[in-house]
Amino acid sequence: TLAMPAIAQSMPEIKWRLASSFPKSTDAIFGSSELFAKTVSEATDGKFQIQVFPAGELVPPLQVLDAVQNDTVEITHTASYYFIGKDLTFAIATSLPFGLNTRQQQAWILQGGGLELFNDFLANYNAVMLLGGNTGTQMGGWFRNEINSVADLKGLKFRVGGVGGKVLSALGVVPQQIPAPDIYPALEKGTIDATEWVGPYDDERLGLYQVAKYYYYPSFWEGSSALQYMINKKKWDELPQAYKAVLKAAAALANDDMTAAYDARNFAALKRLVAQGVQLRPFSREILDAAYDAAFKLYEDEAAKNPAFKKIYEPWKQFRAESYQWFRVAEYNFDSYVYSQQAAGK
Amino acid sequence: TLAMPAIAQSMPEIKWRLASSFPKSTDAIFGSSELFAKTVSEATDGKFQIQVFPAGELVPPLQVLDAVQNDTVEITHTASYYFIGKDLTFAIATSLPFGLNTRQQQAWILQGGGLELFNDFLANYNAVMLLGGNTGTQMGGWFRNEINSVADLKGLKFRVGGVGGKVLSALGVVPQQIPAPDIYPALEKGTIDATEWVGPYDDERLGLYQVAKYYYYPSFWEGSSALQYMINKKKWDELPQAYKAVLKAAAALANDDMTAAYDARNFAALKRLVAQGVQLRPFSREILDAAYDAAFKLYEDEAAKNPAFKKIYEPWKQFRAESYQWFRVAEYNFDSYVYSQQAAGK
Repeated sequence: TLAMPAIAQSMPEIKWRLASSFPKSTDAIFGSSELFAKTVSEATDGKFQIQVFPAGELVPPLQVLDAVQNDTVEITHTASYYFIGKDLTFAIATSLPFGLNTRQQQAWILQGGGLELFNDFLANYNAVMLLGGNTGTQMGGWFRNEINSVADLKGLKFRVGGVGGKVLSALGVVPQQIPAPDIYPALEKGTIDATEWVGPYDDERLGLYQVAKYYYYPSFWEGSSALQYMINKKKWDELPQAYKAVLKAAAALANDDMTAAYDARNFAALKRLVAQGVQLRPFSREILDAAYDAAFKLYEDEAAKNPAFKKIYEPWKQFRAESYQWFRVAEYNFDSYVYSQQAAGK
Repeated sequence: TLAMPAIAQSMPEIKWRLASSFPKSTDAIFGSSELFAKTVSEATDGKFQIQVFPAGELVPPLQVLDAVQNDTVEITHTASYYFIGKDLTFAIATSLPFGLNTRQQQAWILQGGGLELFNDFLANYNAVMLLGGNTGTQMGGWFRNEINSVADLKGLKFRVGGVGGKVLSALGVVPQQIPAPDIYPALEKGTIDATEWVGPYDDERLGLYQVAKYYYYPSFWEGSSALQYMINKKKWDELPQAYKAVLKAAAALANDDMTAAYDARNFAALKRLVAQGVQLRPFSREILDAAYDAAFKLYEDEAAKNPAFKKIYEPWKQFRAESYQWFRVAEYNFDSYVYSQQAAGK
């Protein structure tokens, strides 16, 4: 019949490999990428299969973009700020210190021009992106001793990466790069003084509360932390229209699932941590103010010398100013009131 | 060939009609339902077509659930709290006064057991639901005169519906039900003293700032306002697995799109309104406290007499307490700091 060739063309059998930057143990993240792949398969009656590999099985976690760029794998689930060694611009899609919260970051990407700007930028790496979930505001991490002033940060060996590490080094911190399995022994022996990871749900598994009892908040360097699916551009362009639609929609489902998983699970973990004697501490205003100034100096310096950064940073900064002004009105006042009622036991 | 019958079974041609509760003019909402239908069509190569009808074209906006229940239409895009005349339980899926913010509501539905509870409840109406976007915290509305105390609310003719109207009537407000096109003349003539609608982006189009200059915040009765796609259960159950996966994923894409549209567009509208002389006013603590007490008295009274409400309200209340405790730590402190920096001009 005439229908056969059309069906065969529009729904071809395709197999992709997804190299995740995350281990199975960060299951809110890894589980969402499995949901993504499962949805793609179901929606195409099994014709479009994406096999999901945890960090390190196919390629090391920080080389996933190279693997996508070279078509070693077709797709990755990653955090774009892992690639600031290539260009600081990558950080903006995940998080800049003192940047956008989860809702604002998502609005900027989906409806504020962010996605178009980033896909232009990613074309230099043969990649296109889709949103891949957000952890929400992270915690500031685990400290062996209390940190009250900027003076307390001088010489502090703090396992913290990315732009957060750059900002903190301007305050005297000595940022450390240590893979997850080595964090606990390093903190226990005092090789490092502090470490950050994600938030209560993921941090609890590392057992850090047993060797550092001060748990600081918030991670001012990750007011939100957005992940991405990055896809080899040639492979994306070759897909039938139907499969592009399926990928976009399945990524949105996984995006919502991951953020909701963190939002629904962090509380119980935090409660267990506090029951173990963990001491919650806010960063002092002095520290926040010094970090804020250092962060924006870093961005302005970068924008002055890196046109790719400037091209995305400037509209991002404008969107940030505008979205803060709006969110400060209804959203923030609602939250403030209901949280104050809870604090008063009502 | 053997392949033909399988393809024909798994990708049948289906046409559905979606009756929206919303007019085209609320384009952040209506546009997201069009994106939903477009995505379903593209993902199925045009085999699954959903035709989207604005409010009133097929059925009146508040009778869309009846139409789904009776299979007059297969699907609606609506706000479940429109149906509190049938059962107050419907309100919980959209918003209870002093309830969950957008992130918390979504986490409760997707990862907190909310979706399962609601689909059990909706089985009584031959329906199943998917998330359909959120407006974020709404504004408290337009008032001809300043409202400072609970005494100022006595006898106030306020166009406000749903559970918000019930709570405010306990404070002496006389809630009014007026369709959108009639709001402006009623407010101009003083037939009503105040009206609420959504937020800056939608409110601006109604022109209300020309006849009531005090714009209050936040809508404590809609800390967030979640919409739903509700689908006739028999029609849902009959779908091939692939189409169910497509619908779930396409709804998630539309869900993200709608929330992002409001989050990205409200600022510019608010700025234009303020430039027109609109006076922003927060509701006073006295009013908020009185409304808070009235709201929880209403919920507890309803739970005592309505087992369906109690079955969903109690786990919702528990989730609310827990998510407030977590969000108050990292998320709220991040927002507080960056907003305070902006307020200080930094």
